[in-house]
Amino acid sequence: MKIAQVAPLYESVPPRAYGGTERVVHYLTEALIDLGHEVTLFASGDSRTRARLVPVIDRALRLHRGKPDPVIWHTLMVDRVRELSRNFDVIHFHMDVLHLPFAVRCEKPSLTTLHGRLDLPDLQPLFRQFRQHPLVSISWAQRAPLPGANWLGTVHHGLPLDLYDFHPQAQDYFAFVGRISPEKRCDRAIEIAVACDTPLRIAAKVDDADRAYWEREIEPMLDHPLVTFIGEIGDREKNTFIGNARALLAPIDWPEPFGLVIIEALACGTPVIAYGHGSVPELLDDGITGFIVHDQRQAIEAARNVHRIDRRACREQFERRFAAPVMADAYAKLYRRLCASRLAA
Amino acid sequence: MKIAQVAPLYESVPPRAYGGTERVVHYLTEALIDLGHEVTLFASGDSRTRARLVPVIDRALRLHRGKPDPVIWHTLMVDRVRELSRNFDVIHFHMDVLHLPFAVRCEKPSLTTLHGRLDLPDLQPLFRQFRQHPLVSISWAQRAPLPGANWLGTVHHGLPLDLYDFHPQAQDYFAFVGRISPEKRCDRAIEIAVACDTPLRIAAKVDDADRAYWEREIEPMLDHPLVTFIGEIGDREKNTFIGNARALLAPIDWPEPFGLVIIEALACGTPVIAYGHGSVPELLDDGITGFIVHDQRQAIEAARNVHRIDRRACREQFERRFAAPVMADAYAKLYRRLCASRLAA
Repeated sequence: MKIAQVAPLYESVPPRAYGGTERVVHYLTEALIDLGHEVTLFASGDSRTRARLVPVIDRALRLHRGKPDPVIWHTLMVDRVRELSRNFDVIHFHMDVLHLPFAVRCEKPSLTTLHGRLDLPDLQPLFRQFRQHPLVSISWAQRAPLPGANWLGTVHHGLPLDLYDFHPQAQDYFAFVGRISPEKRCDRAIEIAVACDTPLRIAAKVDDADRAYWEREIEPMLDHPLVTFIGEIGDREKNTFIGNARALLAPIDWPEPFGLVIIEALACGTPVIAYGHGSVPELLDDGITGFIVHDQRQAIEAARNVHRIDRRACREQFERRFAAPVMADAYAKLYRRLCASRLAA
Repeated sequence: MKIAQVAPLYESVPPRAYGGTERVVHYLTEALIDLGHEVTLFASGDSRTRARLVPVIDRALRLHRGKPDPVIWHTLMVDRVRELSRNFDVIHFHMDVLHLPFAVRCEKPSLTTLHGRLDLPDLQPLFRQFRQHPLVSISWAQRAPLPGANWLGTVHHGLPLDLYDFHPQAQDYFAFVGRISPEKRCDRAIEIAVACDTPLRIAAKVDDADRAYWEREIEPMLDHPLVTFIGEIGDREKNTFIGNARALLAPIDWPEPFGLVIIEALACGTPVIAYGHGSVPELLDDGITGFIVHDQRQAIEAARNVHRIDRRACREQFERRFAAPVMADAYAKLYRRLCASRLAA
């Protein structure tokens, strides 16, 4: 098929540093090409891809020196998609709002994957007004605030098979990876590790917005001899950092639409102990790839027993359910369904 | 004619407090109705108008408790305009970006008044991509950064004839009205007044962004016995405050696209001493409605001679050039030209 992938312009595809959506668009784009599809990628000009790149702006917006206006550049991108739309069988958007007036009137089938949380009240009137446009959720849990929207399917994220190595042997520490913010509950991770008398290594970034929380709640807990804070890390370091851990701790306190770090751990063969919010029950098999818990007592119990989890089963689940080719195949099925229903209409 | 006016949603029409664009949309809308046109106003639901109101959101965005997303609500508004577009002869937008993809493909004639400064580099590719869409400038000077855009005309702002009273007699003070920001140069106004041994009354608001500038540059100058700072004032207080002044001082240091306060002064019969940046040479007749100056020596000289200006001439110029019916008539001519060229095409 001839497929357009339309990425946000905040980060390049793939992103230089942080940028969950652009990372997933990258994995999807390259995996669709591996499946033999002809893909055109609308993204910032500093993106790197085997697809045909339509560079909407020279560099990604977030670190751009000229402080470009995101509304202007996303509007321009949507109009570039319109100009080229006759070349595509299907157009896949990864942005929330600005393309909808075009998408509902475009003669070519299109769909949107919503990458963020959906509990903003503004989204109700938005997706009511544009209800003809098909949406894809990244977990079933993500849909909860918008049950009546025009859902075409759920497709879980996937990672390239060779991005992380399988690590059959664990070292003696737990890992925490993510932002330091109240909903990630790094404090709970520290409590769990200390209760198990096991070292905890924390790889995390502290956003400006969370600076006060960090100083008040988390920094004072780092004095403990079992706790090591190593700051922000990249993909290559993650492979070793997560892969060598006895378990990844994800004691989250919010309805996370998709926890990429959970499937990163599974890719390494590292089991995950996570609170059962949001997408967690869809990503983990309780007792097989880790433990789903609901309070600290259960979490500590799980952490004590996590050596019983078969690391090979974690990697196998990753390969079967969360590999990029699996994701690309699921999207290709949705594209075909969409085109067929257009022809039938 | 059947005319749609599409206002920004940040403030109600008219705005409760500050909001230049929404104020002008209000004056234009009511003046078009006075001319016998049938006007539909797309705006926030707390607007007050004799037009048919299409309330896009219950309350204006800026002070809305729910912190609504401006991109979502302006996108929804544009789609509401699309749904109702068959009812209009012409659609007049007062926003910069989000309507352009719709406007260039709408079967009804449409135009956009650009209310802000145009020296942002992003606007070049934006108006190149949407070059079919006709634009209106609020002064000839405003166009300078975008000389090649699709300009349909220039229409200066206008105020209702009865908004301010003519004040034939001045009291012994100069007035400064506006924001306290580096480009408004309140410091120059103080220097001019002190050099003339004449009291200066300052009616101004201090935005958070300008707080440091205020504390460092302006506040220390307020100790002078000739200087009085009275804070922010509304339309009704402005009538007396500006109307009783011997002159309005506008020693600006930036290319202001349109200085509403200048025509407010003229409406009161108050002459204006202004630096010749941006729209100033279009709004003032040097030696007739005030003085256009280029340095402090000229400004002080002008302030000493401003009693020679005939206050009646200021009011007359206002009535002839900057009254709301004049503005509405100018826009109605553009609407007719646009409709005629569509029919001819």
